[in-house]
Amino acid sequence: MSTAIKIFSPATVANVGCGFDVLGFCLDTIGDEMLIRKTTAKGIKITKIEGFDLPYDVKENVAGISALAMYEDLKPNCGFEIEIYKKIKPGSGIGSSSASAAGSVFGINAILGFPLNKTELTFYAMKGEAFASKSEHADNLAPAIFGGFTLVKSTHPLRILELPTPKNLYATLIHPQIEIKTSEARALLPDKLKLSSAIRQWANIGSLVHGLHTSDYELIKESMTDVVAEPYRKELIPYFDKLKAAVLKAGALGCAISGSGPSIFALSKGKKTAKIVEQVMNHVYSESDIPFETYVSKINQEGIKIL
Amino acid sequence: MSTAIKIFSPATVANVGCGFDVLGFCLDTIGDEMLIRKTTAKGIKITKIEGFDLPYDVKENVAGISALAMYEDLKPNCGFEIEIYKKIKPGSGIGSSSASAAGSVFGINAILGFPLNKTELTFYAMKGEAFASKSEHADNLAPAIFGGFTLVKSTHPLRILELPTPKNLYATLIHPQIEIKTSEARALLPDKLKLSSAIRQWANIGSLVHGLHTSDYELIKESMTDVVAEPYRKELIPYFDKLKAAVLKAGALGCAISGSGPSIFALSKGKKTAKIVEQVMNHVYSESDIPFETYVSKINQEGIKIL
Repeated sequence: MSTAIKIFSPATVANVGCGFDVLGFCLDTIGDEMLIRKTTAKGIKITKIEGFDLPYDVKENVAGISALAMYEDLKPNCGFEIEIYKKIKPGSGIGSSSASAAGSVFGINAILGFPLNKTELTFYAMKGEAFASKSEHADNLAPAIFGGFTLVKSTHPLRILELPTPKNLYATLIHPQIEIKTSEARALLPDKLKLSSAIRQWANIGSLVHGLHTSDYELIKESMTDVVAEPYRKELIPYFDKLKAAVLKAGALGCAISGSGPSIFALSKGKKTAKIVEQVMNHVYSESDIPFETYVSKINQEGIKIL
Repeated sequence: MSTAIKIFSPATVANVGCGFDVLGFCLDTIGDEMLIRKTTAKGIKITKIEGFDLPYDVKENVAGISALAMYEDLKPNCGFEIEIYKKIKPGSGIGSSSASAAGSVFGINAILGFPLNKTELTFYAMKGEAFASKSEHADNLAPAIFGGFTLVKSTHPLRILELPTPKNLYATLIHPQIEIKTSEARALLPDKLKLSSAIRQWANIGSLVHGLHTSDYELIKESMTDVVAEPYRKELIPYFDKLKAAVLKAGALGCAISGSGPSIFALSKGKKTAKIVEQVMNHVYSESDIPFETYVSKINQEGIKIL
C-alpha cells in the first residue's frame, strides 16, 4: 500500500442531449490531477491548490467535503493530505466540481486498499457535488468514476448503469469563457413539461441506449435531440444555433449543451470528423469577442485512474 | 404466389410500465386469425366476421381502413376479400384494433409478394388504428408486426426499433371484463408532467432498454415503474393495487396496466413463476363480481405470421 498516489480525474459531459439529469460520458484529454497522501495525523487537509483560486478549508471545498464524508464513515486509523492541480475551469460545464469530488474519494479509497466500490465512491462524491451545485446529482460523477457512458437510474437509492461505448465515437468540445451557474441554468427550466415533449424525450433516451448497444451511429444521431433543456438554456450561450447548425453540416452526429453549459459538445464517428468539427467550432467562435478553448477527445472508457 | 392465405395476428401489450406511448411487446397465445383472398374484382371487401360484432363496411372497420389505404397507394391489378376470425375482445387493452389493422395489410402484402417492409406495413396499419383510437399511434402495431419488444422512436417519420428479448421472459395477463375507452383513458392524463416525474420515467426507459440488452432481470424489475399514466388510470380498474401487490409478492418482475387497460400484465422470469402469477391474479379477482380471463404467454419474437 503506497502512502501517496497521483491520480487523473477526468472532465465529463452530462445530459448528452436527450438524457437530461441521467446520462453522461467521460472525456480523456481533459482532467485534473490530484495527489493524495496518507498521514499519521488524523483528519483531511488540503495542502496545495494550483490552477484556480479555490478554498483550502476542507468544509468549503468540494474535494474536501466528499473526502470528509467518506472519512467520517470509514474512520481509518490515519489522515490524508490532498493536493489539487486543477485544470478544468470551474463553471465550464464539463464536470469541474465532479472531478474534484470524485478525485479525493477515489484517491483515499485506493490508498486504503479499495474498501469501497464505484457506486459507494459516487455516493460520497455526491456530497461534494451537492455543495457546488446545490443538488445531489451524479450525472457527471458517474462517468468520471465508471468511465464510458453512464445512466444514473436513480440517486436514492443510488443506481448507476454502465452503457457500452461504440468504438469510433469521439467528442469535440468548445468552452466559451462566459459564466453560467448551474443553479441559474436550472432555474430557467419550467417545473412542468408538456406530456408530448416528455414522450419525445424518453423515446430518444431509449433509442440512444439502444444505439449505444448496437453501435448504430445513425440512430445515435437521430436520438440526440433535447426538447427539454436546450430550448431554454441555449439563450445563455452566444452563437449556439449557428455553431450547432455548422457542426451538424460538417458531419457531427449530434451537438448539444454540455451539462448546464456554457460548454457545447458534439459527438462524431471517427477522429477525422471530430477534428473537422473542432475547426468548424473554431471558425464560428472566431467571429466573436469571447475567448474560447476547443478539445477533441475519445470517449474515456476507463474513467478516473491512478497515474 | 398463393391466392388466399390465413394469418395469425397477435395481441400485444403497449406502454410496458415505464414506456408510455413508445414501448410494446408481442404475445403468442392470444390473437386473431384472418383469411385474405385475392380476387379478380378490384377493391377491398370484408366478407366474414366471426367472434365479435364489427362493421362490414370497409370504411368503418379498422382492418378495412388500413387495407384500403395500402391498396390505394399500391394500386394492384386485383382486389382482396378479408375474413376476420376475431378472438381478441375489442376494448380489452391488448391491441385488438391493432391486430385487425395489422392483419389485413400483412396478408395483402404477403399475397402481393412482400413489396412493403415492416415499417411500411405499420404506416398503413396506423390508418386503421387511428380510426379506432382517434390518434395515429404504433405502440401496439409495432410489436404485432415486428414481434418481440419494440420502441416507436417517432411516428412522423415512422421509426421503429426492435429491442432484444431475454429468453426466459414470460407475460401473464388478466382481462377484467369492464369497458375502458382508449380516448377516455387518455383524457384522464394531465397535459403536463412534473419535470421530476418525467426524469424518473426516462431514467426507467433507458434502464429497461439496457436491461433487455443485457438480460438483466433485476434491472427490468427495477425499471418497470410507471409514474405517468398508472397513478391516474389505475382508478378505472378495480382491485388494481391489490392485484399488483399480490403479483409482485408472488415473484413477478413487474406489473402494470396493458395499454390503456383494463387488462393488466405482469412480466416474470420463467414460465413457472408466470403460472404462479396467473393463479394469484385469479385468486384476487375471484373475490369480485367482475368476469375475467387470464393468460400466460412467452414473448412472441416472430410477430404476425402466415399459418
